[in-house]
Amino acid sequence: MISVVILGAGNVASHLYKAFQNSEDIDVKQWYNRNLKPLQSFQNDVLISDNISELKEADIYILAVSDDAVSELSSKLPFENRLVVHTSGSVSIHDIDKKHRRGVFYPLQSFSKSADIDFSEVPICLETLDKADYHLLKELATAISEHTKRVNSEQRASLHLAAVFVNNFTNQLYRIAQEITESTSTEFDLLKPLIKETAEKVQELSPYRAQTGPAKRNDKSTIKKHLKQLKNEEHKTIYKLLTKSIQNTHGR
Amino acid sequence: MISVVILGAGNVASHLYKAFQNSEDIDVKQWYNRNLKPLQSFQNDVLISDNISELKEADIYILAVSDDAVSELSSKLPFENRLVVHTSGSVSIHDIDKKHRRGVFYPLQSFSKSADIDFSEVPICLETLDKADYHLLKELATAISEHTKRVNSEQRASLHLAAVFVNNFTNQLYRIAQEITESTSTEFDLLKPLIKETAEKVQELSPYRAQTGPAKRNDKSTIKKHLKQLKNEEHKTIYKLLTKSIQNTHGR
Repeated sequence: MISVVILGAGNVASHLYKAFQNSEDIDVKQWYNRNLKPLQSFQNDVLISDNISELKEADIYILAVSDDAVSELSSKLPFENRLVVHTSGSVSIHDIDKKHRRGVFYPLQSFSKSADIDFSEVPICLETLDKADYHLLKELATAISEHTKRVNSEQRASLHLAAVFVNNFTNQLYRIAQEITESTSTEFDLLKPLIKETAEKVQELSPYRAQTGPAKRNDKSTIKKHLKQLKNEEHKTIYKLLTKSIQNTHGR
Repeated sequence: MISVVILGAGNVASHLYKAFQNSEDIDVKQWYNRNLKPLQSFQNDVLISDNISELKEADIYILAVSDDAVSELSSKLPFENRLVVHTSGSVSIHDIDKKHRRGVFYPLQSFSKSADIDFSEVPICLETLDKADYHLLKELATAISEHTKRVNSEQRASLHLAAVFVNNFTNQLYRIAQEITESTSTEFDLLKPLIKETAEKVQELSPYRAQTGPAKRNDKSTIKKHLKQLKNEEHKTIYKLLTKSIQNTHGR
């Protein structure tokens, strides 16, 4: 049984709390937040606190707070030499106050308040300064996920950057597609099966092999037709740039 | 029972053939291609031909050929006043020779040779010049798919363009993400659940509401960090452009 204290009440903290509660191998000793309100609905299930001097003893302290808050919160913790980890993709492990044993517990997924997450599918990227701590952190991760991976700081930073491309930027392409279809009063919904299939395809095939379309074929007449259709200058620039990028990848 | 003749042997033709054969309401009378080889493995199941003067009579002729071939093939057909449709997202209905009754049967999906397609999930976009033909074409479409939709030429063109954004361009973002992770010897596989979740999320939520990340939050320090990490100038340009696009969408 691994005992943990969760600090923070945002999306990552809430989803982690649920996943930990569902595991028989984890004991959530306490849930701390600087204000109690978001935790109050859980007070019958777990000890909650907004007083940092009241923190209970636990095997692992999880700082599921915003990137900017990691350093300060870690230095305020009223103990030392315990395992303290943050959950951020882009914050250095060294931002945690050096009076602690330090680690990172980075779940590589996009969390939103509403949508439920199946944590067993979420890759958890782990980093520690100390080897024994790695084994403890790995035990925590495998209790909730089937995909855990040791990564160093540089690798974690590249995952965080790559995640912006496959999540935020991809989602913006969906948004642009919606603007394009709505400009002709066409249902965006018609594109949803294709959106799903595009994501499914690269689960098996490399993106290189999965590529199709006018850019890859260098089908100049279709590309010209598309550019003529696009009225929004920004969309046109994005079309040209990504077409060129595909052609560079595929040696056109 | 609707009788059809399929012309062409590419991905769309092959997937349509399979879907039609699985339907009790459709009789594939003949499968034509200018060369017989790709059809030979089907010769015990369907009448095959490479001789255009031998085409059988049918309710609907489906030109599942490349965009450039539609016009010429349609004019070579040795009959007139029958319903002839093409399957392209970007070719005009008027490219079909005007001696025919004309239509479009555009399945909005990305077809590859290997992957099996569940046609019941594929939206089929229909267009005809004549109302009676629309009913016949709709009957054909509903025999294989649960999602059929009448669209005009302008709407079909916008769907085809939008499909490039959600399919080809999105896939290229996956490719760039792969290059980023591989540059630090990190497994691209770790991103696959996030890729899937990103596509799943917009099945329910609008892309506007689904957006998260440093661009939307205008988190300047993370954006700066990411730009510093990117070594490839093209990737840097794409990062800046899509960040700006997200910020324009979300009023930053």
